[in-house]
Amino acid sequence: MGERPLVGHYMSGLPLPPECDSNVWIQSEIRFKPRPRGFHVVTDEVVEAAPRLRELEVGLATILIQHTSASLTLNENASPDVRRDFESWFDRAVPEDAPYWTHTLEGADDMPAHIKASLTGPSLILPVRAGRLALGTWQGIYLCEHRDSGGPRTAILTAFGEPAQ
Amino acid sequence: MGERPLVGHYMSGLPLPPECDSNVWIQSEIRFKPRPRGFHVVTDEVVEAAPRLRELEVGLATILIQHTSASLTLNENASPDVRRDFESWFDRAVPEDAPYWTHTLEGADDMPAHIKASLTGPSLILPVRAGRLALGTWQGIYLCEHRDSGGPRTAILTAFGEPAQ
Amino acid sequence: MGERPLVGHYMSGLPLPPECDSNVWIQSEIRFKPRPRGFHVVTDEVVEAAPRLRELEVGLATILIQHTSASLTLNENASPDVRRDFESWFDRAVPEDAPYWTHTLEGADDMPAHIKASLTGPSLILPVRAGRLALGTWQGIYLCEHRDSGGPRTAILTAFGEPAQ
Repeated sequence: MGERPLVGHYMSGLPLPPECDSNVWIQSEIRFKPRPRGFHVVTDEVVEAAPRLRELEVGLATILIQHTSASLTLNENASPDVRRDFESWFDRAVPEDAPYWTHTLEGADDMPAHIKASLTGPSLILPVRAGRLALGTWQGIYLCEHRDSGGPRTAILTAFGEPAQ
Repeated sequence: MGERPLVGHYMSGLPLPPECDSNVWIQSEIRFKPRPRGFHVVTDEVVEAAPRLRELEVGLATILIQHTSASLTLNENASPDVRRDFESWFDRAVPEDAPYWTHTLEGADDMPAHIKASLTGPSLILPVRAGRLALGTWQGIYLCEHRDSGGPRTAILTAFGEPAQ
Repeated sequence: MGERPLVGHYMSGLPLPPECDSNVWIQSEIRFKPRPRGFHVVTDEVVEAAPRLRELEVGLATILIQHTSASLTLNENASPDVRRDFESWFDRAVPEDAPYWTHTLEGADDMPAHIKASLTGPSLILPVRAGRLALGTWQGIYLCEHRDSGGPRTAILTAFGEPAQ
């Protein structure tokens, strides 16, 4: 009989006691379709893969790509020139024909892909505010595909935060 | 009448039931004043922008800079030589006069700035312990300004954690 | 007398009300033994340093290395060739004998170590799912030691999440 008042309280929709929060966890897999080598804006795909982000008044969203030859970064979302120049720079900075590569079994594009992946990084952490990713106006999420034929790529989106009251 | 005991419990200041946490969320905008191209230690500015970090016994603080030609990193907080050498290296690694740039409309420093921003990264995630950022002794937060005249820069600080009991 | 039902409720092991979460915080120091300059897979050491990650049904784990000449990244966990090629590339991309270094007091390997540390980054944020780090099959945690004799390295692991019910 002792539990009744508590259960009744929560079921009645009355506000929670102030010290007791109510964080929401969201975790889902994002499958990116195969893409050619290069830098690709995927912001919309990420947002569509996590519709429950809209519930969060304040929170954080993280994305980890589960591969070692593709990566994630934020950069300019408007001009395709920027993405092309990214590829030009990375291809020159980490050349395929360098004489010092020893890990060459999986193709000439493999070892440079590993280096490029660590230079840009495997994950993002993004603030959530009023149900939206709080990115800058010009910021977009780049999927960086460093292999010639990397195939589909999987990422784990994990978000949590406080829902609107 | 059923709710009374619960409300009375919390209002009385008695400890929360052990399974019920009480995370605090902090989210605020940090405005960095315009700075010349280069690497700048801004740890104090970040800490001053978030005085409520002091409330957290354990937690995490994240910062996202909302731009694509400035970035954030952690590095040596003592010697100005280190920051100058950062600039020397980045300017040579990502040269302004490379023949392969196609995105040149916004000035010679623009496209290199985008690359440098993704090499260092747009965000930091830092542990909070006993009300302070748990950085190493020599670690400082660098605001990396990659444009000649980047203007003011905005970042979103999002932190959460458990307050001291 | 009013508090009795609430306390009785929680002590009885009945489920929490649905809006009231029960996040667990984990924070601990990881001490990495001294390692030679190079890239080292330390996934097992990280997991062993945080046995309580197993309690989390969903969550996030972050690691910050508290140094400015060593860093963390994720990359291929199988072939030692990959780690060797990482070292080859980084040593050429950030050469010790560059004429523009001014911060040379602490040895020829010091300033390149600072740059390499910021290129790979000081921290990781990793999803936790069903008590395990949700890494890709080929992903391992690299401790990147950029000094010739960097000594022991300290990192702060901070994780939080929801325990299995």
